[in-house]
Amino acid sequence: MNKFSPYLVIIILFRATILSQTVSSETNECIDCHISVTPGIVADWKGSLHSKSDMQTALMKPMLERRISVQSAPVNYSADLVVGCFECHSLNPAEHKDNFEHFGYNINIVVSPPDCAICHPAEHQQYSGSKKYHAFDNLRQNPLYSNLVDNVIGIKEIEENHFKLLPPSHLTEGEVCYACHGTEVTVKGMKSRETVMGEMEFPELVNWPNHGVGRINPDNSRGSCTSCHPRHSFSIEIARKPYTCAQCHLEPDVPAYNVYKESKHGNIFDSKKENWNFSNVPWEPGKDFQAPTCATCHNSLLASEGEVITDRSHDFSARLWTRIFGLVYSHPQPISGKTFEIKNADGLNLPVTFSNIKAAEYLIGIDEQIQRKNNMNSICSSCHGSGFSGNALARIDKTNEEADLMVKTATALMEKAWKEGIEKPEPSPFDEQIEILWQRQWLFYANSVRYATAMMGPDYSGFKNGWWELSQNLRAMKDLINLKGQK
Amino acid sequence: MNKFSPYLVIIILFRATILSQTVSSETNECIDCHISVTPGIVADWKGSLHSKSDMQTALMKPMLERRISVQSAPVNYSADLVVGCFECHSLNPAEHKDNFEHFGYNINIVVSPPDCAICHPAEHQQYSGSKKYHAFDNLRQNPLYSNLVDNVIGIKEIEENHFKLLPPSHLTEGEVCYACHGTEVTVKGMKSRETVMGEMEFPELVNWPNHGVGRINPDNSRGSCTSCHPRHSFSIEIARKPYTCAQCHLEPDVPAYNVYKESKHGNIFDSKKENWNFSNVPWEPGKDFQAPTCATCHNSLLASEGEVITDRSHDFSARLWTRIFGLVYSHPQPISGKTFEIKNADGLNLPVTFSNIKAAEYLIGIDEQIQRKNNMNSICSSCHGSGFSGNALARIDKTNEEADLMVKTATALMEKAWKEGIEKPEPSPFDEQIEILWQRQWLFYANSVRYATAMMGPDYSGFKNGWWELSQNLRAMKDLINLKGQK
Amino acid sequence: MNKFSPYLVIIILFRATILSQTVSSETNECIDCHISVTPGIVADWKGSLHSKSDMQTALMKPMLERRISVQSAPVNYSADLVVGCFECHSLNPAEHKDNFEHFGYNINIVVSPPDCAICHPAEHQQYSGSKKYHAFDNLRQNPLYSNLVDNVIGIKEIEENHFKLLPPSHLTEGEVCYACHGTEVTVKGMKSRETVMGEMEFPELVNWPNHGVGRINPDNSRGSCTSCHPRHSFSIEIARKPYTCAQCHLEPDVPAYNVYKESKHGNIFDSKKENWNFSNVPWEPGKDFQAPTCATCHNSLLASEGEVITDRSHDFSARLWTRIFGLVYSHPQPISGKTFEIKNADGLNLPVTFSNIKAAEYLIGIDEQIQRKNNMNSICSSCHGSGFSGNALARIDKTNEEADLMVKTATALMEKAWKEGIEKPEPSPFDEQIEILWQRQWLFYANSVRYATAMMGPDYSGFKNGWWELSQNLRAMKDLINLKGQK
Repeated sequence: MNKFSPYLVIIILFRATILSQTVSSETNECIDCHISVTPGIVADWKGSLHSKSDMQTALMKPMLERRISVQSAPVNYSADLVVGCFECHSLNPAEHKDNFEHFGYNINIVVSPPDCAICHPAEHQQYSGSKKYHAFDNLRQNPLYSNLVDNVIGIKEIEENHFKLLPPSHLTEGEVCYACHGTEVTVKGMKSRETVMGEMEFPELVNWPNHGVGRINPDNSRGSCTSCHPRHSFSIEIARKPYTCAQCHLEPDVPAYNVYKESKHGNIFDSKKENWNFSNVPWEPGKDFQAPTCATCHNSLLASEGEVITDRSHDFSARLWTRIFGLVYSHPQPISGKTFEIKNADGLNLPVTFSNIKAAEYLIGIDEQIQRKNNMNSICSSCHGSGFSGNALARIDKTNEEADLMVKTATALMEKAWKEGIEKPEPSPFDEQIEILWQRQWLFYANSVRYATAMMGPDYSGFKNGWWELSQNLRAMKDLINLKGQK
Repeated sequence: MNKFSPYLVIIILFRATILSQTVSSETNECIDCHISVTPGIVADWKGSLHSKSDMQTALMKPMLERRISVQSAPVNYSADLVVGCFECHSLNPAEHKDNFEHFGYNINIVVSPPDCAICHPAEHQQYSGSKKYHAFDNLRQNPLYSNLVDNVIGIKEIEENHFKLLPPSHLTEGEVCYACHGTEVTVKGMKSRETVMGEMEFPELVNWPNHGVGRINPDNSRGSCTSCHPRHSFSIEIARKPYTCAQCHLEPDVPAYNVYKESKHGNIFDSKKENWNFSNVPWEPGKDFQAPTCATCHNSLLASEGEVITDRSHDFSARLWTRIFGLVYSHPQPISGKTFEIKNADGLNLPVTFSNIKAAEYLIGIDEQIQRKNNMNSICSSCHGSGFSGNALARIDKTNEEADLMVKTATALMEKAWKEGIEKPEPSPFDEQIEILWQRQWLFYANSVRYATAMMGPDYSGFKNGWWELSQNLRAMKDLINLKGQK
Repeated sequence: MNKFSPYLVIIILFRATILSQTVSSETNECIDCHISVTPGIVADWKGSLHSKSDMQTALMKPMLERRISVQSAPVNYSADLVVGCFECHSLNPAEHKDNFEHFGYNINIVVSPPDCAICHPAEHQQYSGSKKYHAFDNLRQNPLYSNLVDNVIGIKEIEENHFKLLPPSHLTEGEVCYACHGTEVTVKGMKSRETVMGEMEFPELVNWPNHGVGRINPDNSRGSCTSCHPRHSFSIEIARKPYTCAQCHLEPDVPAYNVYKESKHGNIFDSKKENWNFSNVPWEPGKDFQAPTCATCHNSLLASEGEVITDRSHDFSARLWTRIFGLVYSHPQPISGKTFEIKNADGLNLPVTFSNIKAAEYLIGIDEQIQRKNNMNSICSSCHGSGFSGNALARIDKTNEEADLMVKTATALMEKAWKEGIEKPEPSPFDEQIEILWQRQWLFYANSVRYATAMMGPDYSGFKNGWWELSQNLRAMKDLINLKGQK
């Protein structure tokens, strides 16, 4: 018995694993060619959990450890197959305008959030309420923001002494603003391409590739899971590391990653991350990691010794009480992810007016704010005494207030310039020099000090786009008003 | 025997380890609750050397390998106990205004450098002579710097055509300048807080949390060991990695980390660090690492094959002959860490005047400079021929000289603006546009080229805040003088 | 037998390794002293492949796996010796002005590319055709660029109301522009230095140390292998990691690394690199890595399952069809690495005129451009469908076109300023304010958006030196023309 016991158990477990991991015949056919056509994709998938998991085994795990949120295998879904090429790229073909016949199979090029929702419905549901999910419309359907986009990325030609502004190209929209917000991916018929297998026909996708969070997909759905769980690794590890968030949340406008990196949290992460576990579900402070990443505080399921600290959410503002970027002034989080539906007292689709009147009916109330702040404090309390974290969180409100005052002074200067005819609010409040300094005040510098306080990154509070610039920019505005006014 | 031997040895060794590692009954009581209240803190400590070391064992190590500098266990100190919660948080209660009764024990919230000095007295001693230790006073007690602080972080309101400057709030001071320099942590009575254990009373700390290097603690001591050895890991590894220094030494004002990162040293660190040992004492060039970090050159004990290359120091300028940041001009290192006590020929608490006259009696002399430079060269010589490193170090002096000349030209321009009444030195030399460009010249651009030379990061010498800006800024100053003068 | 077998095999293998790895007696003598004089150098070499490889064994490897390109051992070369100190530092002594007598041996201080070419001739050959190899002359021999250098790094003194421009010092040239482009390392006789072995004589090298890619060496050769394979590790791993390229290719002028870091490729690299193999030859997408680094796309030999995807090249533009930095407008890659030999329609040594007329005869033609683009697409296709990568590559051309238009508008504004006498093209088009904004337009902002498109880093397309600045800078130029014109 002595010589059998441990080996036998291992062998049986191994067998069980192998047996439960059946690759579908369709996926096997995909791999037969793609292993030489696109070896990187196949290797990426092989390293992923999808190549090793089937729904049936996944559903046997305790609730807290599950990575899928479906409660039972859907009808017509082979719950004993691992999740391979065909399982994801063949779903909902009738909806997918990018579906095409490919060696006898009907294949979608783009896998969309509703396709992922076959196994991950709760995550899709959470995501669909978020500002990220509506990021395309939140830009496109907001006339003021669209005007800003046109002013920034439209080609400018000089004619006499004024600029002729041409409309931005679709490609440039997709390279700049909509790279993060998401493009509208459409299908423009079929196109023939030379391949290693000879000439073949593929759907011609427009505004593709793109992995923006609010992408509009060829099945008319929204969102992109690959934004954070990239490509064929479907990785939870990558999503939990701050580099993912850093792709869009960078200085000067949203210096989240920059501030994190220079914070004590970021310092410890950079020093010790090789020893941490970024894949465990649930994720345990202290055991799996010793300092938080973006995901820790903003959306991961956290637990300690089997007790839930906070639930998973794919609505990335669900834990936030205040909104500190993207707008002229800070304000409570919007109730809905569709911020383009907000209307403020000036009739603009913004949660605040230029003089800082909140559009309160579109924003969460004080009770909800307090509840979310308390929830955040309970996350901090995994590693900090409650006095420590309570004080740290209280500073955020104070900094918001002060940064807002510094923006208000800039607004007063811009309005003075308008009143004195030095610059004009029409056709755009974004296309002249003093107006541009005003934008820098809130879009770069006020954002920086708010982020720097929220995560304790002192340089972004100070000399690097912080209070230094908040103050010097006012002085630059005043001088420029004087100089332009004297002309 | 065959089947016993190795296991037996392991068991005996394990036992021996366990036996020598006794956790005090007080600490055990702390852990009983805190393992669920703040699991991250307990896990951090468990991973630390403090949870595995007692003084008695530590004192048995050869001198060169010791991590404590006390020579024998102090009276009343249980030298056979590992260093747990109670051992650190219960020291010097009479001094600690943050001491409070907590489940029958008298506990300090903040552990201060004198508390750490029980085991690490030499480090405390070295630290106490440094500019870092006096960083709070070096800012607060220097009227010119205090004026700069007020001008940068005070709220500005516009009144007619001038700014009304409000005094900065305490919270913002602690978020910006004093985040690095350290706040004054005071105790404002007791406060009741709702906790998972019910309502409890805690001392209410003001200007807390903070981990600035010159922090004033509730026991009236100065400094913060956690600045570099963060929280409950007490890690030497984290302190030796450059991310720690990067929390305060970042562009634009002190681009030490930025330059390091783009230097060859930083490149090799980033490529190979996973294979290096950041915890060994002493630290051996070649064996433990192949390229230096900040700590290697500035303060770690280095040895090779048992021979000391350079001694440990927690006075972080002890190896430096020249001071290249924070001041208008470069100058020899100050003799004392209390730079606020310096008085220059203009009566300002600065080691140089605006026209670059050194306050020589407060600065180290030429012999000491040469001795320190030679010591630094001997560190470089672990990995470089002496011609290589000698030339590299000689460049620093040349760059200092040239950068100083470029600042002097900026100063001449500012003085011209003052003389012509375009701007005024009162009430502050920091609050008008040309003055602000002058500040950028020394605080950002001259600092950048000096750091870039010291560590060979060419972009910070060139286009990124380097010579490009040093030159273009002069041109911007001249144009602005002309424009404002013509009004 | 049981107790012998595994140990015996190991011992025999170990012996075999040892036997084939003979260190020359000369190198052993070097090490005898240098292990204590410069322990870091010896340790670095011991960790390198050079300390473990001899030519004879290396030549036994299959072609695809070879790291040397010599076809057989040269006459007079001991092919059974590992590559030690003496093997590299004693080559071509007659050419080396830095050769000196050192304990009975004739030693060169600098190891130059022709020395490395003893084993790596193909790499030297490729390198010698590149712009990098000619980087010194491409700056020095181009009068316009030399004028830019002088304007940026020369000391400026103020005299009345104009600047007196002093010529830059040699040291500062080597710290800034020539830090990357390479200095001219010359020998100024012998100099005596105090060492741990007593007083000794060494050649005195000028403009040394330097590791710029176009360095001129004391044997009159060009280039520096240590730029990317640093010091005595000779590491392929370091060369393949992006930190190496980052030493010179950083924002604001060449934001290659910055864009990479915020791209999806960079995000995956940062998250997963610890699990990848950066040393395998050939390098296999999917198997060795899941996302590319700079080297993957620009110069490494890639293969999959024994099939070559693309050949190795040490001409770093060999795979590029378009040139997106360093010049006023984008343009096809130059045919020769000696760009200083180009002459455009305005007689300047630039591939484009200020009004964007290409010097077509010096640039690769459309067929070569298409062929290179197809080759690049085949690299992308390791991990991406051809529609995905084809669209991504097509965007580069569109962005180049739009960025060029934005530069053209800036050029029109500068020419207007010249025409109206507000600024003057003489003595330099680089020394006045509007001219400086014009430079920023192409050198910083147009470069940024081109890089951001090439590698998908949206912030560098947008708010960070991207379209935001491209647009606002035009407005700043117009305002400044009006203000300076009104004086």
